[in-house]
Amino acid sequence: MAQEGTAAEAVLTGLAELREWQEGFYTNLHEHPELGNQEVNTAASVAEALEGFGYEVHDKIGTTGVVGILKNGDGPVVLMRADMDALPIAEATGLPYASTVRMNDANGENVPVMHACGHDVHVSCLLGAARLLAEKKDAWRGTYIALFQPAEELADGADVMLKGGLADLIPHPEVALAQHVLPLPAGHVGTRAGAFLSSGDSMRVTVWGRGSHGSMPQLSVDPVVLAATIVLRLQGIVAREIAPGEFAVVTVGRMVAGSKSNIISDHAVLELNIRTFSETTRTTIVNAVHRIVEGECATSGSPQPPTFELYDHYPVTENDSTTTATVAEAFSGYFGDLAFTIDRQSASEDFSEIPDALGVPYCYWGLGGADPDLYAKAEAAGTVATDIPANHSPKFAPVIEPTLQNGTAAAVVAAMAWLGRED
Amino acid sequence: MAQEGTAAEAVLTGLAELREWQEGFYTNLHEHPELGNQEVNTAASVAEALEGFGYEVHDKIGTTGVVGILKNGDGPVVLMRADMDALPIAEATGLPYASTVRMNDANGENVPVMHACGHDVHVSCLLGAARLLAEKKDAWRGTYIALFQPAEELADGADVMLKGGLADLIPHPEVALAQHVLPLPAGHVGTRAGAFLSSGDSMRVTVWGRGSHGSMPQLSVDPVVLAATIVLRLQGIVAREIAPGEFAVVTVGRMVAGSKSNIISDHAVLELNIRTFSETTRTTIVNAVHRIVEGECATSGSPQPPTFELYDHYPVTENDSTTTATVAEAFSGYFGDLAFTIDRQSASEDFSEIPDALGVPYCYWGLGGADPDLYAKAEAAGTVATDIPANHSPKFAPVIEPTLQNGTAAAVVAAMAWLGRED
Amino acid sequence: MAQEGTAAEAVLTGLAELREWQEGFYTNLHEHPELGNQEVNTAASVAEALEGFGYEVHDKIGTTGVVGILKNGDGPVVLMRADMDALPIAEATGLPYASTVRMNDANGENVPVMHACGHDVHVSCLLGAARLLAEKKDAWRGTYIALFQPAEELADGADVMLKGGLADLIPHPEVALAQHVLPLPAGHVGTRAGAFLSSGDSMRVTVWGRGSHGSMPQLSVDPVVLAATIVLRLQGIVAREIAPGEFAVVTVGRMVAGSKSNIISDHAVLELNIRTFSETTRTTIVNAVHRIVEGECATSGSPQPPTFELYDHYPVTENDSTTTATVAEAFSGYFGDLAFTIDRQSASEDFSEIPDALGVPYCYWGLGGADPDLYAKAEAAGTVATDIPANHSPKFAPVIEPTLQNGTAAAVVAAMAWLGRED
Amino acid sequence: MAQEGTAAEAVLTGLAELREWQEGFYTNLHEHPELGNQEVNTAASVAEALEGFGYEVHDKIGTTGVVGILKNGDGPVVLMRADMDALPIAEATGLPYASTVRMNDANGENVPVMHACGHDVHVSCLLGAARLLAEKKDAWRGTYIALFQPAEELADGADVMLKGGLADLIPHPEVALAQHVLPLPAGHVGTRAGAFLSSGDSMRVTVWGRGSHGSMPQLSVDPVVLAATIVLRLQGIVAREIAPGEFAVVTVGRMVAGSKSNIISDHAVLELNIRTFSETTRTTIVNAVHRIVEGECATSGSPQPPTFELYDHYPVTENDSTTTATVAEAFSGYFGDLAFTIDRQSASEDFSEIPDALGVPYCYWGLGGADPDLYAKAEAAGTVATDIPANHSPKFAPVIEPTLQNGTAAAVVAAMAWLGRED
Repeated sequence: MAQEGTAAEAVLTGLAELREWQEGFYTNLHEHPELGNQEVNTAASVAEALEGFGYEVHDKIGTTGVVGILKNGDGPVVLMRADMDALPIAEATGLPYASTVRMNDANGENVPVMHACGHDVHVSCLLGAARLLAEKKDAWRGTYIALFQPAEELADGADVMLKGGLADLIPHPEVALAQHVLPLPAGHVGTRAGAFLSSGDSMRVTVWGRGSHGSMPQLSVDPVVLAATIVLRLQGIVAREIAPGEFAVVTVGRMVAGSKSNIISDHAVLELNIRTFSETTRTTIVNAVHRIVEGECATSGSPQPPTFELYDHYPVTENDSTTTATVAEAFSGYFGDLAFTIDRQSASEDFSEIPDALGVPYCYWGLGGADPDLYAKAEAAGTVATDIPANHSPKFAPVIEPTLQNGTAAAVVAAMAWLGRED
Repeated sequence: MAQEGTAAEAVLTGLAELREWQEGFYTNLHEHPELGNQEVNTAASVAEALEGFGYEVHDKIGTTGVVGILKNGDGPVVLMRADMDALPIAEATGLPYASTVRMNDANGENVPVMHACGHDVHVSCLLGAARLLAEKKDAWRGTYIALFQPAEELADGADVMLKGGLADLIPHPEVALAQHVLPLPAGHVGTRAGAFLSSGDSMRVTVWGRGSHGSMPQLSVDPVVLAATIVLRLQGIVAREIAPGEFAVVTVGRMVAGSKSNIISDHAVLELNIRTFSETTRTTIVNAVHRIVEGECATSGSPQPPTFELYDHYPVTENDSTTTATVAEAFSGYFGDLAFTIDRQSASEDFSEIPDALGVPYCYWGLGGADPDLYAKAEAAGTVATDIPANHSPKFAPVIEPTLQNGTAAAVVAAMAWLGRED
Repeated sequence: MAQEGTAAEAVLTGLAELREWQEGFYTNLHEHPELGNQEVNTAASVAEALEGFGYEVHDKIGTTGVVGILKNGDGPVVLMRADMDALPIAEATGLPYASTVRMNDANGENVPVMHACGHDVHVSCLLGAARLLAEKKDAWRGTYIALFQPAEELADGADVMLKGGLADLIPHPEVALAQHVLPLPAGHVGTRAGAFLSSGDSMRVTVWGRGSHGSMPQLSVDPVVLAATIVLRLQGIVAREIAPGEFAVVTVGRMVAGSKSNIISDHAVLELNIRTFSETTRTTIVNAVHRIVEGECATSGSPQPPTFELYDHYPVTENDSTTTATVAEAFSGYFGDLAFTIDRQSASEDFSEIPDALGVPYCYWGLGGADPDLYAKAEAAGTVATDIPANHSPKFAPVIEPTLQNGTAAAVVAAMAWLGRED
Repeated sequence: MAQEGTAAEAVLTGLAELREWQEGFYTNLHEHPELGNQEVNTAASVAEALEGFGYEVHDKIGTTGVVGILKNGDGPVVLMRADMDALPIAEATGLPYASTVRMNDANGENVPVMHACGHDVHVSCLLGAARLLAEKKDAWRGTYIALFQPAEELADGADVMLKGGLADLIPHPEVALAQHVLPLPAGHVGTRAGAFLSSGDSMRVTVWGRGSHGSMPQLSVDPVVLAATIVLRLQGIVAREIAPGEFAVVTVGRMVAGSKSNIISDHAVLELNIRTFSETTRTTIVNAVHRIVEGECATSGSPQPPTFELYDHYPVTENDSTTTATVAEAFSGYFGDLAFTIDRQSASEDFSEIPDALGVPYCYWGLGGADPDLYAKAEAAGTVATDIPANHSPKFAPVIEPTLQNGTAAAVVAAMAWLGRED
């Protein structure tokens, strides 16, 4: 067997040929996004493709989870995961393949749906890598597991697959891999040992006022004024209560009160998102949210206590050092200067729940998806490229290439650091 | 023919007997509320009842409008109006006949529905008066028109009936009457000459941020913080920009932003309600809303200008002096000390659009619907009864009696000031 | 003795001649303002002038109070009062006779001083009237008392004079009069029976944080953020908690926190001003301030409870009906259409404490002081003249004439309604 | 000559004996603080002490700067700096030696004064080290320069000494040293290579309203509401506009508006403090402050544009790597586990301006000053010791010992890493 670099390169010889099929798959997937645990069509087309490549396929794991297993003699077992679900966002990219899909979410509410987090990129790249490995089985040995997870955005897709019996369906992996497209210049691939992604928690806060006719505020306790003050007060947590330089995010992603302009409602709902890299900071924030909400309810003369509901908990994603060193070296060899040590990212993931449950070390990396020209222009102008829509923006739109080619190559190169190993 | 008081009393001899039927009608209507322009069942049961009393009935006027006409020889033509529609509010009264109805509103959104403004009282009382007048035709002469209007809460039900050809369906009235149940002690009936109800305007404000992942606020312009600041700033209009003592209300009845805790949305919507008794004040407020919203968008670095949409305009309801003097005298004669000169009310109505379009003077009055015991207790405790749910509260619950008996009597007494007139 | 009008006109024959002296007195006083209870030079020049006119003068009453008494045979005893004190405001009128004075206030703080409330107009007009009455003693009979009060702005000058023995120094008046220059077109004189000026209360609120270095907010409880939120929340009292149309003002006139940009202070001070025409409303506001401040301190995690200090209480100024009818009739006779029934004013006064203590009915009126041209221009442009600096503005600058001539005439005409009376 | 550790220990044999004198000096200095560039008595007692120890003394450098030079044969020249000035804070420690001093500040305002930043510790420790070195001249060789700097808190004391000719008064140092007492457990000494202290900038923002009487808000543009909203909006810079984890502080240390409760002032002043470790972040913040203030002024309808004044700029304090390695090694040798690598600190210093101007590498370190028992108790309770007053708190109170003994030892040990060097 040839040496590492060469082996990966051997697998990647089919990369350019893949392009037309892969881009077609990607734009079709982007145009037909599905919400978490409802990725029925996505999972079906993934399963169909894997079968076509010759994989042993298990589907409907948990809800819509899929794994494809390709056994190629003795050797390391490598698992790579892609997430499949989309978000309740109305797409505003103006792309020719933009989504106009609407679905009922878990609460039965009809919402617009969009691949605003790039999971369509992840699926397309992992499928591409799965195909290339299947086409060049003589360049490696071992077992490759391509895992397609539902409902990452609901923080429960990994758990759903584990509860659906994943451990019994696959051979025990030696290593687990995953990637995420990010607003970095396309072409770049970055990883880091240790903490990579923050923990994430969501919190639903309901505060109570007293309803009244819109023209009789004096008979009301106005929940809109109450909610608005809470929003402003919450800014003070990161600005004043957390030590400067300590990573902490408190976002009010959703705020809803009232049904009609001339009715003062009797309650308002705030949905918060909290990100930290430290349990102490997380506790400080959660306590501060309680103190602020309760204090503001007292200020308003709220007639009943607020309620707090924590949900969608994500753990810190913390890359294994040895595993990451191996991946990083393989990336340097293949991508040269475009491989780099990335900063910690403020996003969160449930990916780590699967390797953690299986007792497997993992490496997660970031894949550039933004038009490199935008960065070049900003640099030329001496500014920073802040107008690049980030993940979860209704305008999030990775450039198709070199993103897909690159993400496919990264998936292959990383896996081949094990599968192409000389023993 | 007997003298005024006596004639009305003659019509009212059947009042007590009416009670069982009327309360049944009322509780059934309360339990089955319908949104504006969709009052199909309400209108049908109203039309059926009127026909049963012997009225000439026209229905489906505009959308769901109904009029019943009872001709009783030569004499004055008196029109009295009741509004039929309910509100998108989830009832929280705990009453045995509480509504659990949900309907699709005009935007296709499925919403809870409740008679939170007492239109069920208005319908029940007007039907009761119509029945009594039909039963005692020898006590009066002239023509009585009972008009049941849709969609008062949408500010277009009066207009809908006018456009639906109302003027051609009824004889020209000499006077128009209407009443509204209010959080006053049940038993009381109050009217006033001149301005009675404020003008009302709704305004939908959409402000724009830049969407991002909830963990990457630095790439966003956060529309939740923007909307919250606008809400607090809007309080300054009444508190700082309008002369103390000048009637002015600016309510943000609805505030909506975002779909999910970990997504920063790209816009927020505020729905305001504005009430004044003066065009100058109205203009000052509308201008201030524009200035504040535009200023806050600039503060946030909003990527696109806000939009403003004025809707649901209600005129000032201004009682004719002569007509009101006649009604007030009749009320004093029948109700004694319970008849009073009411203060201007901050609510708004589209009732006046019909008499204004027909060139008819009108009188509007307030009907007490709150449990008198609550006031008595508050007074005994030396406090003010502020815990009485106002119109549009999810806990708005008039006491059935004496509200219905009284509202029926008021309708008869007022009409009889014309119909029972000695010529 | 001639009839009323003629008698007042007889006294006023010297009005034009007075002008040069009076304007000199006024501009000199404007340029040399003195703070409350420190009006030493003002009082001395007033006393000197009164003596020169032949009045019996008592000075240093309480602190710096002065009365001049002119007995002119049997007849009514009329008291008219002017207030003498200025405000801690840095004048920004740009007038040639603008003040550059600084004084130590009652707390020993060195502050700029300005006649920003027009008390210099009141003093000048009352002196002018006193002189004219002294010059034409044959046109009237009775006793005229010109009273010059200190410290109206501190809400204790009237009280200071009463405690200083005023009642024993003067004959018992039949009526008490006072006027105030307002941002109305100069030339106009307006009064009204009943409530004229609101009650006023000041409230000093001290809230506590925890001090820290400006770079270590996480160790602090930031009193600046706390105070800022309280200020915004207080706007909700008038905007949301008081019935629309009910007169109520809550102004935070002073807000002070911290000594240096890079130190987080441990407290902040807010000084509020509260105006109402109703004790119930006043109580509602005071309770709401307590609730809001305490609630916000809890929200901040304030380490010690806030403190509240009520001070500078002013009663409602409520004109006696009969007395006011007499004055209004005299004004109409002399000023014609320029005499009008003025609206309630939101300012407050301690004037009424003196007649109330003496058991004397009173009439208070408003004197136009603003350039009539500004109103004419605004009217021509179809706008409202909002750019006229109000009392207490650093740009408050009554036009000298016709303000002084008119204010002098008003003082004479009103007094002569009694002093010129035919018995 | 003995080896390093031993030589330093030789100098430190007199440490215990020093204690009584040093503590007396310290408590006296704490009780008699002086503001920046006015440290007349402090400087005099420092100069007197240095002369008593046998130093060549230069005083009144710039304003009140003092240096003492002790030449002890050929060898390295080591400069150590202490800052002498206190802060305009009213002491609230309750210490027996608490300050009750008041002084006029640079603006002529009379303010309370307190050593709330521990400069009294710095002065006392440097004097102690100077004395020990003078007493044990046989344990080292070279030249020791003890530099006492004015006005660190005004960001201009280092500059003042440089402009006052410092470079010509002292031999060129090989290294510069300085220490700062911090809310760490006393006994600990921490340093770090590279960025140690943030940059600091102050910004004075004046916003304009329109003045009015407190009872006539409708004629005003209320600068208090404007300033309050700006304060809340500024919290959004760190909370929303700076990447999570990036060091950034925006503190409003001072907020002043109005003179009196019943006057609406025409302006408000905010004094901000900005801290960063990055020029890009600093620029982002300064731009955001401009955008926010200008936006809020537009929202208020401010009649004139706000003004911005940047002042008190401090550079980043960035320790030289080689120098710091030398100091850290010496600390480890002497203090053992109590010597540690400290985190970046959010405070700022002008110390670096002197070595930067002289072209000299420097090392700055942190000295624990807080009662170690408080930390022990917090740890035992499983909490964090957040109730320890930080620098600039009115309750900032280092424990006298072991702070002074330790700070003196640190000064000696660090200097002896050069002065005690075997060549």
